[in-house]
Amino acid sequence: MLEINKKMAVKVIHATTSPFSDFSSSAWPFCSFVMSTKDLLSPRPQIGLNITQICLVKECSEDDIVEELLKLNDDPKVHGIYLHLPPASITSRVLNTLKPEKDIEGISDLNMGRLIRGDLSKGFVPPLASAVLDLLENHDTPLEGKTVLLVGGEGPLQLAVQCLIERSGMVTLKSHWSSKSLQVMQADAVVLLDVGNMYVPPTWIRPGAAIIYCKPALEKGIALYVVFPINLCYNEHEMILKPSIAETLFKVINVVRSCSRWLKGQEYRPWHLRSLKLQPLTPVPSDLEISRAQIPKPVDQLAEEIGLLPEELEAYGRSKAKVRLSVLERLQSQPNGKYILVAGITPTPLGEGKSTVTVGLVQALSAHLRLNSFACLRQPSQGPTFGVKGGAAGGGYAQVIPMEEFNLHLTGDIHAITAANNLVAAAIDARMLHEATQSDKALFNRLVPSVNGVRKFSPIQISRLQRLGIRKTDPASLTPEEINAFVRLDLDPSKITWQRVVDTNDRFLRKITVGQASSEKGQIRETGFDIAVASEIMAILALADSLGDMKNRLARMVVGTSRSGQPITAEDLGVSGALAVLMKDAIKPTLMQTLEGTPVFVHAGPFANIAHGNSSVLADKLALKLVGQDGFVVTEAGFGADIGMEKFFNIKCRASGLRPSVVVLVATVRALKMHGGGPNVGQHSAVVITQYSLLRAANGAFFLGSFRTDTQAEIDLVCQIAKECGASDALPCNHWAQGGRGCSELAQAVKEAASKPSDYQFLYNTEMSIVEKIRTIAQRVYGADDIELSPEAKTKTDYYHQQGYGSLPICMAKTHLSLSHMPDKKGAPTGFVLPIRDVRASIGAGFIYPLVGTMSTMPGLPTRPCFYDIDLDPVTEEITGLF
Amino acid sequence: MLEINKKMAVKVIHATTSPFSDFSSSAWPFCSFVMSTKDLLSPRPQIGLNITQICLVKECSEDDIVEELLKLNDDPKVHGIYLHLPPASITSRVLNTLKPEKDIEGISDLNMGRLIRGDLSKGFVPPLASAVLDLLENHDTPLEGKTVLLVGGEGPLQLAVQCLIERSGMVTLKSHWSSKSLQVMQADAVVLLDVGNMYVPPTWIRPGAAIIYCKPALEKGIALYVVFPINLCYNEHEMILKPSIAETLFKVINVVRSCSRWLKGQEYRPWHLRSLKLQPLTPVPSDLEISRAQIPKPVDQLAEEIGLLPEELEAYGRSKAKVRLSVLERLQSQPNGKYILVAGITPTPLGEGKSTVTVGLVQALSAHLRLNSFACLRQPSQGPTFGVKGGAAGGGYAQVIPMEEFNLHLTGDIHAITAANNLVAAAIDARMLHEATQSDKALFNRLVPSVNGVRKFSPIQISRLQRLGIRKTDPASLTPEEINAFVRLDLDPSKITWQRVVDTNDRFLRKITVGQASSEKGQIRETGFDIAVASEIMAILALADSLGDMKNRLARMVVGTSRSGQPITAEDLGVSGALAVLMKDAIKPTLMQTLEGTPVFVHAGPFANIAHGNSSVLADKLALKLVGQDGFVVTEAGFGADIGMEKFFNIKCRASGLRPSVVVLVATVRALKMHGGGPNVGQHSAVVITQYSLLRAANGAFFLGSFRTDTQAEIDLVCQIAKECGASDALPCNHWAQGGRGCSELAQAVKEAASKPSDYQFLYNTEMSIVEKIRTIAQRVYGADDIELSPEAKTKTDYYHQQGYGSLPICMAKTHLSLSHMPDKKGAPTGFVLPIRDVRASIGAGFIYPLVGTMSTMPGLPTRPCFYDIDLDPVTEEITGLF
Repeated sequence: MLEINKKMAVKVIHATTSPFSDFSSSAWPFCSFVMSTKDLLSPRPQIGLNITQICLVKECSEDDIVEELLKLNDDPKVHGIYLHLPPASITSRVLNTLKPEKDIEGISDLNMGRLIRGDLSKGFVPPLASAVLDLLENHDTPLEGKTVLLVGGEGPLQLAVQCLIERSGMVTLKSHWSSKSLQVMQADAVVLLDVGNMYVPPTWIRPGAAIIYCKPALEKGIALYVVFPINLCYNEHEMILKPSIAETLFKVINVVRSCSRWLKGQEYRPWHLRSLKLQPLTPVPSDLEISRAQIPKPVDQLAEEIGLLPEELEAYGRSKAKVRLSVLERLQSQPNGKYILVAGITPTPLGEGKSTVTVGLVQALSAHLRLNSFACLRQPSQGPTFGVKGGAAGGGYAQVIPMEEFNLHLTGDIHAITAANNLVAAAIDARMLHEATQSDKALFNRLVPSVNGVRKFSPIQISRLQRLGIRKTDPASLTPEEINAFVRLDLDPSKITWQRVVDTNDRFLRKITVGQASSEKGQIRETGFDIAVASEIMAILALADSLGDMKNRLARMVVGTSRSGQPITAEDLGVSGALAVLMKDAIKPTLMQTLEGTPVFVHAGPFANIAHGNSSVLADKLALKLVGQDGFVVTEAGFGADIGMEKFFNIKCRASGLRPSVVVLVATVRALKMHGGGPNVGQHSAVVITQYSLLRAANGAFFLGSFRTDTQAEIDLVCQIAKECGASDALPCNHWAQGGRGCSELAQAVKEAASKPSDYQFLYNTEMSIVEKIRTIAQRVYGADDIELSPEAKTKTDYYHQQGYGSLPICMAKTHLSLSHMPDKKGAPTGFVLPIRDVRASIGAGFIYPLVGTMSTMPGLPTRPCFYDIDLDPVTEEITGLF
Repeated sequence: MLEINKKMAVKVIHATTSPFSDFSSSAWPFCSFVMSTKDLLSPRPQIGLNITQICLVKECSEDDIVEELLKLNDDPKVHGIYLHLPPASITSRVLNTLKPEKDIEGISDLNMGRLIRGDLSKGFVPPLASAVLDLLENHDTPLEGKTVLLVGGEGPLQLAVQCLIERSGMVTLKSHWSSKSLQVMQADAVVLLDVGNMYVPPTWIRPGAAIIYCKPALEKGIALYVVFPINLCYNEHEMILKPSIAETLFKVINVVRSCSRWLKGQEYRPWHLRSLKLQPLTPVPSDLEISRAQIPKPVDQLAEEIGLLPEELEAYGRSKAKVRLSVLERLQSQPNGKYILVAGITPTPLGEGKSTVTVGLVQALSAHLRLNSFACLRQPSQGPTFGVKGGAAGGGYAQVIPMEEFNLHLTGDIHAITAANNLVAAAIDARMLHEATQSDKALFNRLVPSVNGVRKFSPIQISRLQRLGIRKTDPASLTPEEINAFVRLDLDPSKITWQRVVDTNDRFLRKITVGQASSEKGQIRETGFDIAVASEIMAILALADSLGDMKNRLARMVVGTSRSGQPITAEDLGVSGALAVLMKDAIKPTLMQTLEGTPVFVHAGPFANIAHGNSSVLADKLALKLVGQDGFVVTEAGFGADIGMEKFFNIKCRASGLRPSVVVLVATVRALKMHGGGPNVGQHSAVVITQYSLLRAANGAFFLGSFRTDTQAEIDLVCQIAKECGASDALPCNHWAQGGRGCSELAQAVKEAASKPSDYQFLYNTEMSIVEKIRTIAQRVYGADDIELSPEAKTKTDYYHQQGYGSLPICMAKTHLSLSHMPDKKGAPTGFVLPIRDVRASIGAGFIYPLVGTMSTMPGLPTRPCFYDIDLDPVTEEITGLF
């Protein structure tokens, strides 16, 4: 790297003072190096260093230095920090506060340890040590077997020098300056480390030997600064190499190294997933016992294994963390992995184990086939958790852990939705009351109050004015008519579609009368509560693809209609900014893990019968980037294929632009028998065939859950029929008893199916009329002869067309217990007309929401809810009864 | 430490094989050292090492080793880990997975770096290096100036040996075995590091020199194990010291060191708080701008500064964390700090800045007086945050940061309370419905179902049986009468006291009718929602002193009365275990920080008018331990002294057993003028005097907030009057504009007042009748002539006495805007009779709850709620409008 005249017998190299050494002594300059990443990425990199000096007052404390360092540590634009401080200020705390990745001097304990061990992949060689070695190399090669006398010094820097010299094959002799015999004559080179003004007379050394004087910056507090462009200042006439230049060069190299590592760290990183070992027991213990027996990896470790950066993670305790959406931007050029959907046949009331298959499949893919994979699950509702269902973390040896964290508050997303939803509800009723009891003028004075004599519209009020066609920003300029239009939402109490929500199975809130206290002045009205996950805000969370998109969708939500028939939105109520604030953390998916330590995103909610019921678009998109091109993201659609999968295909995939490669349809012999209406599975496989036919659009694989009571003949028959219908494969699985290992054949089948091209098509074109779209779903998915709209549904449909909502996709609210609207019609019923009782519009979520028959949006509690068995040991803090 | 015969000319020391070297080659033993802490703490310590070998199969992967290491890292009973692995298995990842605190070999990069730098306070010297130095010391002292020839080796261990030798003042010469000249004759000692079977003939060395052969365990995978008791095996006849013994001794020393450090770490640790610098601007910017301009310390760093252990923290993002209650056990023998209460005079509707004073005071104490201090604040309710109040994080330069985290979901405690409260409500109504529609037999069959042919009571059902006096555990043995008593709670719908809650200002839910859907079969009833923080569960959270206590209190909550007049509890509903599960994380206080980086606990809720309204007992107790004997905990009582402070004294202090040292009474000239009814503050100071008289029991200081419009004369007059009334001191403060610096006089005054003895007494004895207790509060605190109970209140009071609740303390629900029950009566009203409209009982929280006049338990939204200004920038993610 450096050229030097090798004929010279002696090279005397001496430190000059630094350009900053005559700086005011009241200030100690820090130095951080900032590089333009663009320069480094260009084919012929031009290195530009942005050097910032941070001057601290001389009497600054250790705390002051630490505070500065912490800021620089966190600043992604700083790639190197150089401490130009008096030695007494470089305390152990200061030294080890410095982030090792930015310690370009290589002086932190960790970097020194790395150097000593010879691991240069992460740390930095101290520039002075590099400079000494470089000078030696350029003085006389090969170095192997040569002898170097090191004189003086005891510090880490000296050991670093020695370490490098010895690693290059030279022999070192060490001695103090005060040592009796300096042995100078034996040495091929003499390195004087920090020996003050001592001087070795040329006569002491043998001809051809080099003397290198070092006055390390670290020890003297002399800054050696980088200059750019770098002109190597070898002065051939004087044969003096200014050591500041040599050392400076290596400082630059270290900054470049630091920056390159940072850039490398920003790129997609292959996983190094450490799977957790499972040793399944027979008989299979309870879900909670299995979950508790496995110690989850700390979530920050899991995140690192799958290539997330520490700054992309927000831990919530030790085993779950929110993942920031900035990952999408960082990995935007990374191709997506394969997208796998797990759906089910029309289930029994007990459920057929889709979550368990989803978890088992990723355990098999990641931990057994060593293919990157991610499961995307929905957050369970606390309603069923304390009602009839217990947990929803999978089951047996295919679970998300810790299951109690998964089943309880998680990271608070559903609570945030509840808070946001109910703020809208409170705003609606309070606004109606205030409008009913105040004049236009009073309303206007309160809505646009004079603050310190100034009246101003808030941004959200300006948005409303614009929707009203009023292009004014000065409150004083509004005409009385405009004031009237602005202050009166004039909501029709009978046309409010917004319900309150709780995440509790509280059947008594299904239909209620509110406003009965005298303070509400007789403004009573009938309304009701839905289960929280049925909130439109949940659907928005699931379908939004960015914070901005979520905010816009929240603003667009229609809560009811004015007496003149205009839709009234959350933005009209002035509440949509607050909703975005309440939801700002909920939009980040939560990272957890399976029993085998493979990653899981938990995001958005269940209830595919009355809601959209799929996990979030953002979780899927993040996972597709993270698994890499050859990886797999397994996402789950709620309830039967007629409900969850149909909505996945036609709503979620339409919103996200993603296309599934494979669908895994979960069927159990138990459910097939139920649909067949008898014990003989073979004669009643119509339901499988019907449901399989739904998959034609996708490249469907097929899976069969196995229960203890199933016979081999039953399983074989179902698999045979499924394959005859065109499934890529159909096989039994045993993940419940064996974890990923019991699912590895399925994983293999999924891998093969995913490698084939798929011919994915939407079921309907959104430009069809609302009625036509509903009819298409009813006929082609449910097997109905036709549909029949109630007069109310008909009126609403016309209204939505008139309002311009006609081209939204359809989100059916229908029982999950039958392909038809009649829960007791099992199998593949035919010859029925699907009644459409009502049609609603979720404008923020972006779908039309027809209600089929009587669908409750609030579950109830049975006589003995499962909370009877849920308990907490106050000493061990162990939970029982979640299963 | 070791004795050796110094006359011997040559000491040849050679490695023996370890006792485990003939172990099955299919297994590599790990070794962890576990010490009994009891032994170490005894006056004459007997060291007992519990050595556990962990055998891994030979074909184990790096992942397997890492997995074992992570378990050992986390196990608090393991104080040392020794890697007995082939060199190829000791990869960089393995080495640095090992927790440096347990790396008794001193081989991790961090420990090696520490050794090289000469910082031995945290790391470990490799036992072999210690052994070599020890042998040299015992061979010939002083070491200073002697020369040691190091032969062979390049690894970290060799550098460690060299480093130690040089630090002892010896000169080292280094050479390879293959070096031309070994210079053996010059050395006072020769250390051969890892040179295989090479042998130095005694004739090569000069008389009196020592040769030490080392075959380091690290390099060869030979384990050198600790034996106990340690017999030093110097064989004086052969003059051979078995190196395994020397090295082993230092291994033991390192384990002892590790264990001592761990024990030391468990003790109370003095704080090393790094305060954040404030540079207040004039004019004072908005709260949000101030909050955003300050970068909070990472919460794990703050925790470390105040002596919390990493395992006691559960981070929620970067700036807040829950703190585990195990801290109380660890620091149980640590004396408490001083306990300071901040209370206020009867406020204006705008509030008089108690939170701001609380925050300013701890900023002054910690950051300016350098006294440990902790603020204990209450979590704000989202109702007022989005309604009229904005935030509650303090104001100006005395705030908790980040204020948006503080004001939004925090760590979900209020959401957990809402979920728990509403689960009880759903359970009540569902149970009434099921009892109304089923026979005893049907109810019993459902409540105690047969599972796989076995019928069993759940533990919570056995508790109910016991309360009913039925001592049976076999469901089959119950008589029909017993079954009837067991299955029928027989709740009287008109006597249900449990309300639902939401954390939203939703006035339309004040009075509602539920159960109007046809599915509820006509079981309609009138009820209502309270704001979530008014839930009894919030009071329980605030008053419980452990998880077990909280669980018992939740079980005891009375939700209503049976038709026969029996109180029905949450445990009777079977729901109390589930409530404890829902609340298991909420019980841990949340750690945050002030603008100056001083610690804050946020726990439990506001609304001292309708609830107990103090921060939690647990937060105060944790903080009192953490600040240490000379530290200060500043806690806050809601609203005026008549409400929050009275409840603090008589409910909270009674429950906690804690006694305040000082009370700071916050008064503003603005509020005093309002109470005086005119602009002249001097003539109307009765309210201060009255309220100050409340403080007589405690050792009260006095504080006065200063506003821009106050004159110096006004301030002087108020201070003078306060001091005449006996306040320790009375002074104006300027923390809002200046942060802690503006409050340091107050801090000094508080410090002085706290050093004086206090004569604290409860206002009433709980053994007085409920009516007498209410009367005492009304007369002595509010200045009422007497009280007057409504007939309903009278009946209830009698009923509570009859049920044995008579000796509970009193939690008054009264307006906060007047000392009386009439919000518009300002100053210190007299001559009124306090009407007690109703009396309720919060048996779980442990108080009787009289309602004075008309008190709404649900706030409403104004015409222009502050959500109009709350917004989120989707790009920067910055929030506006929270203030």
